[in-house]
Amino acid sequence: MAPSAPGFPSPASWAVFFLLLGTFGEAGRLLVVPIDGSHWLGMVPLLGRLRQHGHHVTVLAPETNLRIVPSELYTLQTYPVAYTRDYVEVEFRQMGHRSFARQPFWHKLAKIANFTAMFFDSCKRLLAHRELLQELEQSHFDAILVDPFFPCGQILAEHLSLPSVFFVRAMPCGLDSLATLCPSPPSYVPGPFTRFTDCMSFPQRLGNVVAALSTSVACAWLYKPYKALMAEVLGREETVPQTVPQLLGRAAVWLLKYDFVFEFPRPLMPNMVLVGGIGCARQSKLAQEFEAMVNASGEHGIVVFSLGSMVSEIPMKKAMEIADALGTVPQTVLWRYTGPTPPNLPKNVKLVKWLPQNDLLGRYKENIQRLSELHLDRPIHPLDLAVHWVEFVMRHKGAPHLRPAAHDLNWVQYHSLDVLAFLLAVLLLFLFISFKCCLCCCRRCCGKKGRTKKATKAKSH
Amino acid sequence: MAPSAPGFPSPASWAVFFLLLGTFGEAGRLLVVPIDGSHWLGMVPLLGRLRQHGHHVTVLAPETNLRIVPSELYTLQTYPVAYTRDYVEVEFRQMGHRSFARQPFWHKLAKIANFTAMFFDSCKRLLAHRELLQELEQSHFDAILVDPFFPCGQILAEHLSLPSVFFVRAMPCGLDSLATLCPSPPSYVPGPFTRFTDCMSFPQRLGNVVAALSTSVACAWLYKPYKALMAEVLGREETVPQTVPQLLGRAAVWLLKYDFVFEFPRPLMPNMVLVGGIGCARQSKLAQEFEAMVNASGEHGIVVFSLGSMVSEIPMKKAMEIADALGTVPQTVLWRYTGPTPPNLPKNVKLVKWLPQNDLLGRYKENIQRLSELHLDRPIHPLDLAVHWVEFVMRHKGAPHLRPAAHDLNWVQYHSLDVLAFLLAVLLLFLFISFKCCLCCCRRCCGKKGRTKKATKAKSH
Repeated sequence: MAPSAPGFPSPASWAVFFLLLGTFGEAGRLLVVPIDGSHWLGMVPLLGRLRQHGHHVTVLAPETNLRIVPSELYTLQTYPVAYTRDYVEVEFRQMGHRSFARQPFWHKLAKIANFTAMFFDSCKRLLAHRELLQELEQSHFDAILVDPFFPCGQILAEHLSLPSVFFVRAMPCGLDSLATLCPSPPSYVPGPFTRFTDCMSFPQRLGNVVAALSTSVACAWLYKPYKALMAEVLGREETVPQTVPQLLGRAAVWLLKYDFVFEFPRPLMPNMVLVGGIGCARQSKLAQEFEAMVNASGEHGIVVFSLGSMVSEIPMKKAMEIADALGTVPQTVLWRYTGPTPPNLPKNVKLVKWLPQNDLLGRYKENIQRLSELHLDRPIHPLDLAVHWVEFVMRHKGAPHLRPAAHDLNWVQYHSLDVLAFLLAVLLLFLFISFKCCLCCCRRCCGKKGRTKKATKAKSH
Repeated sequence: MAPSAPGFPSPASWAVFFLLLGTFGEAGRLLVVPIDGSHWLGMVPLLGRLRQHGHHVTVLAPETNLRIVPSELYTLQTYPVAYTRDYVEVEFRQMGHRSFARQPFWHKLAKIANFTAMFFDSCKRLLAHRELLQELEQSHFDAILVDPFFPCGQILAEHLSLPSVFFVRAMPCGLDSLATLCPSPPSYVPGPFTRFTDCMSFPQRLGNVVAALSTSVACAWLYKPYKALMAEVLGREETVPQTVPQLLGRAAVWLLKYDFVFEFPRPLMPNMVLVGGIGCARQSKLAQEFEAMVNASGEHGIVVFSLGSMVSEIPMKKAMEIADALGTVPQTVLWRYTGPTPPNLPKNVKLVKWLPQNDLLGRYKENIQRLSELHLDRPIHPLDLAVHWVEFVMRHKGAPHLRPAAHDLNWVQYHSLDVLAFLLAVLLLFLFISFKCCLCCCRRCCGKKGRTKKATKAKSH
């Protein structure tokens, strides 16, 4: 059978499908705690579809932010923070610089800590805002949709006793595996930023284990302020989560923005739902400007070069190095870059402030074409899958049937170390008794022989 | 938000949906290796839907069998076996007796071995049938759908170099976890037949580990003949699977007939797709006979009692004990039972040869109503999910992107035991060197002091 051309139906067909099914269910009330920047941009299509389904969506954001603007898709509820918009813009803009600057690891970490301090400050002010919290309590939401990259949303979920759905690509330091208690064997699951694949040599596997240990130390340090904040807001009772992984482990469902077509396969837990490609709309016609560039690219085609929506400026020295490197390829390069133009920009490189990435990469060749086919060949569009699970949690007030009992075990119990120790003790006891018995038997036999010999000797004398 | 009433759309709506999508793709050729009895009954709806999608389905079965009859849904291809239909019927009928008879474990195991010997004999004859194998090779199937309870289908898949999809509820001795390399921590995943839940005390966790060890020994013995058959048919090269778990680990996708609404949550692998409830059609109107029984049951309602389609007769002593027990409940009991009527049958128990179980349990109360709602609240009907994945494997000739690299590691590497041993050795070496250095320093200091004291003494004399 030749592979057919799988593709997503147009939004109109989906709408007809849902109208046919008549399974829209009742409209609900959803609270959303996003994280500013690219994370927020990835969340908007989901909120749009939830609005289409008739739900009332309230987005909670600091009044000073970069991208979270009022919209007809949701009610925007803001709260005051201590920093200015200029400060936020500079912090976000410097992200690119920091990624490229040559600095010692601990220096970088300290600067990241500076950036995350901004989010922590915003979180502290939200959770100290008595009137706002009271208003949220009285709004009787059905569920809360949280970007868990910083644990603020889940602290609020606990405070409001709301079931939560997480929406994220991956968590720092494998916090997603830690929180969901999802096994993640370091023997074939490479850690982030290790650059290893799922097939590792012995030194690489060693490096992977060491990397996992060291990043978990670094992360414990980064998330430390939240541990104190949790205790302050939620109390220290035994029923309340005590650590950040325990806090994040309370989520009903994790919507994870990845797909095994582009990730190395690894174990999952029942409450992890893969919605990779959720932001990929159907390829639409290219604007004339880009169409002309693509047509002029000739036989070699084009290369799209972008460092993501949040990295717009990088140090000039790095930008010139990149420009030099891009000049060596035969393709026309479209580089999304809003910083100052490098003086050595080669002829084949065009700087653009914005790229229709989805439509430009809609044309994909050979190997990428195959991956794209696998990625698109799914029984349900990831956007509808995500909406289903948000609505599921709203309808059933959580998803406790997907929560493994592993959450109630300690580390020793989870790994059955007590059982193994007991079995080992039994085995050793058995061996010891057997050895003693043998020794005893031997002694008796030898003793008897000895006595018989002596007796014989005595008689012969 | 009040829970809406989720329900599956009627087959007609699904058909309209699929026509709207236009994603039927090209028709393909599918080979099916089922297992006779209840396993086969569970597979028929899937074959029906695949036929609806235009695929050509060939079912391979021994010519002497219980339930696999010709149908317009598929082409039935049979092969000769050594046993008679009477023998098959007696073997299947005795299954119920065996389950209830008081016999030592090893006696039962020997009788199960007798039953499985029938399937093994059939497998051997299929794989020795040169002409049939040649015909299958020339049929150019796109994929093979296998019931992996006995590994015959996968040996055939390897021989024909076809990507396989498995369709099963669970495997004996946790062979599904072993084959997919899916982590299954015995600390909260209870073994089959242990009667433990996911919350176990220390003695229960101990029992669970011991049960896992002992069933794996029993299973190694039960599947031993297949290991020899594999070597005979597939050879002993390194690239060929050498053990039954390795053989089963070659499946592209596992369609598993369970759902976490009724199972304890545990880890999954990317190529495990849950299609529990795949055989549950929409509730239809009850036949008059049953309607009358239900109406006459009064306030207490009814209890449906069935031991599954393959257990129709049990020892009379056990049947009388069950009848006694059923007499003590206030409900009307509908017992699906085809054996001789127990003389002590109470008034509230009605024996029936067949039950419209789906329709009788369609009306479910309170707690069960809640579970039913969770079970039915899915983004896609499990039948369509199963069809999608069979077609996926047919279209893309397998699903290698879902295969974890763990399959290429040995036991020591998988558990990072070599890495841990190395780190331990480094730690011990470090401690040893530190200790030696300290000792050396101490000696020098003491030595100096000693010499100084001596020198002082000598001077004072």
